[in-house]
This record gives sequence, C-alpha cells and structure tokens, in this order.
Amino acid sequence: MRVLDCVEARLEAAERPAPHPAKGQVRIEVLRCGICGSDLHAREHCDELAEVMAETGYEGFMRSSQRVVFGHEFSGRVAEYGPGCNRKLPEGAPVVALPLLRAAGGIEAIGLSAAAPGAYAEEMLVQEALMLPVPNGLSPEMSALTEPMAVAWHAVRRSEIRKRQVAVVIGCGPIGLAVICMLKAKGVRTIVASDLSPGRRALAERCGATVTLDPREEPPFRAKGEKHLHTAPEVLELAVGTVEKLRRLPLAWHAVWRAIDRLGIKPPAPVAFECVGVPGVIEQIVTGAPAFTRVVVVGVCMGEDRFRPSMAINKEIELRFVLGYTPLEFRDTLHMLAEGNVDPAPLVTGTVGLDGVAQAFADLGDPERHAKILIDPHLRPVAEA
Amino acid sequence: MRVLDCVEARLEAAERPAPHPAKGQVRIEVLRCGICGSDLHAREHCDELAEVMAETGYEGFMRSSQRVVFGHEFSGRVAEYGPGCNRKLPEGAPVVALPLLRAAGGIEAIGLSAAAPGAYAEEMLVQEALMLPVPNGLSPEMSALTEPMAVAWHAVRRSEIRKRQVAVVIGCGPIGLAVICMLKAKGVRTIVASDLSPGRRALAERCGATVTLDPREEPPFRAKGEKHLHTAPEVLELAVGTVEKLRRLPLAWHAVWRAIDRLGIKPPAPVAFECVGVPGVIEQIVTGAPAFTRVVVVGVCMGEDRFRPSMAINKEIELRFVLGYTPLEFRDTLHMLAEGNVDPAPLVTGTVGLDGVAQAFADLGDPERHAKILIDPHLRPVAEA
Repeated sequence: MRVLDCVEARLEAAERPAPHPAKGQVRIEVLRCGICGSDLHAREHCDELAEVMAETGYEGFMRSSQRVVFGHEFSGRVAEYGPGCNRKLPEGAPVVALPLLRAAGGIEAIGLSAAAPGAYAEEMLVQEALMLPVPNGLSPEMSALTEPMAVAWHAVRRSEIRKRQVAVVIGCGPIGLAVICMLKAKGVRTIVASDLSPGRRALAERCGATVTLDPREEPPFRAKGEKHLHTAPEVLELAVGTVEKLRRLPLAWHAVWRAIDRLGIKPPAPVAFECVGVPGVIEQIVTGAPAFTRVVVVGVCMGEDRFRPSMAINKEIELRFVLGYTPLEFRDTLHMLAEGNVDPAPLVTGTVGLDGVAQAFADLGDPERHAKILIDPHLRPVAEA
Repeated sequence: MRVLDCVEARLEAAERPAPHPAKGQVRIEVLRCGICGSDLHAREHCDELAEVMAETGYEGFMRSSQRVVFGHEFSGRVAEYGPGCNRKLPEGAPVVALPLLRAAGGIEAIGLSAAAPGAYAEEMLVQEALMLPVPNGLSPEMSALTEPMAVAWHAVRRSEIRKRQVAVVIGCGPIGLAVICMLKAKGVRTIVASDLSPGRRALAERCGATVTLDPREEPPFRAKGEKHLHTAPEVLELAVGTVEKLRRLPLAWHAVWRAIDRLGIKPPAPVAFECVGVPGVIEQIVTGAPAFTRVVVVGVCMGEDRFRPSMAINKEIELRFVLGYTPLEFRDTLHMLAEGNVDPAPLVTGTVGLDGVAQAFADLGDPERHAKILIDPHLRPVAEA
C-alpha cells in the first residue's frame, strides 16, 4: 500500500505492506483524511510539542527523527478484523474511529505517533472499540470531518454558552469555522466572527456567522448589537443602581434581597472562542473584552505567553482551555453530521491525492485560498491513472 | 475627628471636621476597620493600580500625590442621616456597608479613592442603600470582617466547588485563610492548604484545613488522599478503558453510549485557589496541577505574568479570575457570620489605634506574626489616655 511518511520535516511517498490488526484492532481502507493544522505544525515543531507532551507523561508523541504517517481525521471501510473482535460490522462497512490505538504498551495518538501510523495512507489500523459505523449514507468527505467537528463541539459544550449569549469567534481558520458551525447548530443567535482575511470572513458567513469583521478596522467586542458592560463604572452602576432602586420600593428587607437574587445583578456577558493560537492573543482578548467574558481557548499557542492577570481580575475574565473531545462527543458529532443538524461543507476547499499533500501543506498557508483540504489516498495523478 | 492620611506613601495622622452626609448618605462612627493587603499594596504602588483601573474606565482610583484615607473593611454605628434617607435604623444602630460611595459624579471606591475617604478615621460616610444592620449582636470585630470574608465567599461561589471535590488553597495570607473558612462553611470535605510559613499553616489548620503542607517539601497537588489524574496516559486509559469495558457488555450501541453518558468519563478534579498574587504562581499551578483542575485566581498579581498555554490546554485547565462580591454575597456573608456558620476569629492577630497603623503595616510583612490586624480608631496610646 502507498503511504506518505514524514521524517525530518520531509514528506516522502513510500510503498509498504498492509498493516496486520492485533487483538481488538481493525484494518480499514482509508477513504478520506483531512489535513489538520496540527499536522502542519507537527511537521516543523514536533520536538517542542513532544517535550510538552512528555511533561504530562505521554512519551509516545512523534519526534522529528522518526518516520511518521500523519492523519487523524479520517473515514474508511472495514477491511480486516484482528483476533478477539466483536465483528459487529460487515467487511466494507463505512466507519470512522477515534484516533487512538493500543500499541507499544500504551495508548498512542494515531497520526501523531511513530507507533500508530495515520491516514495519509491507503490502509491503517484502528481500535474496534473506538470505531463507529457511519449512519444515513453520510459521505466519506463529511464523515472525515467528524474529528475536527468534534473538537469544535467539545469547545462549544465546554463553553456552556446559552442561546441568547453573544459568541465572539476570534480567528476563522478551520477550527474557528468549525466552532461557528457548531454554535449555529446549537442555536446561538448572535455569532460575531473576526479574521484578518476577507476570504475567511466569507467562509465564516457561509458557516453561519451573524456579523463578520476585520479586527484591524473594528474591535470584535464592540460589534453592533452587542450590549455588554465594557467599563468598571458601568458594572458598578448596574450593581449599585439595582440595589438602590429595589430599596426605594416599599418592601421588607428580605424581599429586597430576594428580588435582587431573582433578577440577578450580573449582566449577560459574551463567550469568546480563541481560535488563533499565537502569543499575545489571550492578552488582546483580556484587554478588549467586556466584563465577565468567558474565553474558551481552542487555539494551541506554543511556548510562553504573556498577559496581565490584574486586567483579567478587574473584569472577572474566565479562561477555559480545551482539548479534544470525549468519546461521547465524537459519537454525537457523527450523528449531528449524519442527521443534517450541522453542515460543515463550506470548510472543504479542496481534495488531493497523496502526491498532492506537499503542495497542499504549502497552499494552506494562504487563508484566501483554503480552509480544509481532504486527502483521497486512492486518487492518482492524471499521468499515472 | 482624627483620621490617618496617606500621601506620597507616608501615613500621617490629621485632625479634620466630621464629614457631612449628602443625599442618600449616612455618617457613621467607625468601630473597627481591617487593614487589607490592598492598602499595603496601594500605599506603595497605587499609581500602577490606577493605570489598570483607568484602562477599565474607572478614573477615580487613588494616585500617590493625593491625600487619601484608607479603610474599606469596617463596622460602625449610625451617627447622622443625610437628606432623602429612609432612616430605617435608629441612630447608634450597629451597621456595616459595601465600600462604595456616590461622589464626584460617579461611584467611588471607599478607602481607595480621594473622593471617598475610608475607615482609618473616627467617622466616615456610607451610602444608605448599601448599609446593612448588624444582626444577632455580632461584635464590631467580627462584623468588620464581612468585607474580606465576602471576597472569599464570592471566590468559593464562583468556583462552583462540590463538597466531595478536593480544594487546594495556595497561599495562606488573610484571603487564603478566609477562603479556607468559607470552604469549611460550605461543607467541602478535603481542604489542602499550602504556605511557606509554619505560622500561616498553623492558622490554616485553625481555619479548617484538612492537610497543610510546605510547597518546598511536598507538591500541593500530590497530597495524600488525593486521587486525581496527573498524566495524559492516565486520562486516556480512563476514557478509552471505559469505552472498551462497556462495549464488551451485551448491550445495544445506544445503551453503551447512554451508560457512558450516565457514568461520565471525566474524572473528578480538584479546585485550586490562587491566593498568592505574585508572578509565576499561575504557571506553577498549571504545570503542577492534575488534568481538568479549575483554578480560581483570587490573588492580585500586578504587571505582566508568563505561562504556557500549551500546558493549560493539554490538561484542560480552567482559570477563573475573581474580584470582589455581589451585594447579595456581602449580605449573605454578614448573616453567615452572625449566625455562627463561619468563624474567622483565627484570622485576627492584633488590634491597634490609628497611631499604631504604621507599625502594623510593617508587622504585616512577617507572616509568622500576623494575618489580619484591626484598627480601633478610638483607641489612644496609653500615654495619651
């Protein structure tokens, strides 16, 4: 079978025997695989990522000196069961799977570990217990988006946003766009999307953003329609003014306090999604956001970052750092896609074969041209076909 | 009346006419006033604090060149009503009040603004609507602790901690100790308290800490009794292992997923309270804490701080920055004190007159000697009395 290796940041096509499923594993034929921002990042900076992973106890993350097959956003077809499987699905059944494999004595990250080759290949191994049948005839293209959409669904769930709260999505790369789709699916009414690129802003609108803006021209937290408390005097006036008004009413003291409790004196605040992941963005959000903003940090910023805790405290900002998804969120995302409750079709801006991946990595650097590129590992260049 | 001014970081006793209550205001006789860490900090660094405040729109915060009377943690007695008051309480009634005053066309911070002199004085002004009667004969000493205890109550409420979750309090200064008292009052079973000072650790035990430790000898997040997930492989094994076990059972797929949903695969995580407020502590916590830790940042760290977002993301850490309290939380704290549901008596390590404040500011630098010092503005030195 054909695979695409990454070694010392070089992408190299190779021919390799089909993998043998171990106990509880399944060999699947890969139909589509998304190119993830993590793949681009790991190609150049995997040693730095591996150091952070090792600090949290995971030693298996890829190193630049290793030969690794990327690809953790995939759809496929059941090809061969290993020993000890339940075999509930027939061969040829369309499936997706959580990108985790029992290998090398532990659980390895498929597509980001030398011990668990990913889906930049014609075939690969998955864990039967983490494999799910694709329902409703959902296409291989859309089912390959289960993984990135599950990342977005996890972020939206962890945000605990309510439908009437304003969502502000900072950065409209693939993850920002996926978050917009999922906010829309959840029924959030006002979604403000901010990106430097006009192309990405157009995609954000297609994904469901209510307002899009260029942060160089308009601060994302002052978008029209937003009525949040931006200054300390506004916050104090709301709190003190409410108490004063209520205490002028002919009510007993306990009734006054019950009324305050019922009304609530904490104003509705926006929920921001940080989907950029470069140093300085958190501080920009902390400085620009209104009081009580909850910030869900989805973008992975490497290295050290700086911010002012005193500003975060003055506004009672909340920073929720999120990663991945639970198995249940992955399952729910697949079903949302299959039932048409969320439509990430605007994200997909191209499909390439394994030979086109190196060019696709380069193309993804231009936000005007691309968001998500899928790989069809069986697609051959015209000359070969 | 006698007051203690702060100007250019000097504390100077002065004689001044009693203040006249404006519309909706009340003049109170001060009985006790706590010395707050903010007072110590503002004495030396108020210009830096004022800059941060100005950025959030509050221009009234004290500057070093102004003549300011500190004191925002106070108890007193009603002395004189201004025009337009409800006058529900008789003169002489014991009261506390939220430290906010309508003055200079806005709402000013009592004791931290030149426009709203505080309780380092024999008399002061408060807003009638924000004034509360002290119930149950609660002493002036304990009722003066309403304000700092409300800060702790707000932090505990915002933490959304459950009784069975482990609380880890980093730093046992007055705020850390107050947080321990309030966690105890809430019924949290395991409270781990960490401080460099043996004296502060002893106070933490008196306030209700279950385990105290010296962070130089034992990491606070590895205290005995704690069973949290510290490494990425532990997190993955719990998630994947649960799915594998359930899928071996003779259940239909939807039943498997319902069972996962019901069981929850997210482990219980600790809640940490950052009560130190110096640069680097947030990064220490992010690096040392187990997965899914919620960190409530109560300590005010000035200037820029550095941390690694990638580490916070890998562990799905949550940082909740908190400030102050709501009027309702202030009222509830007073009632918790008056009903004996919380006992902050161990916090109070001394009482001084206005003449003793300068020495008290110096003494508070030694954690072995002091936690909270109260001012009795009517106390005169022995020679004078």
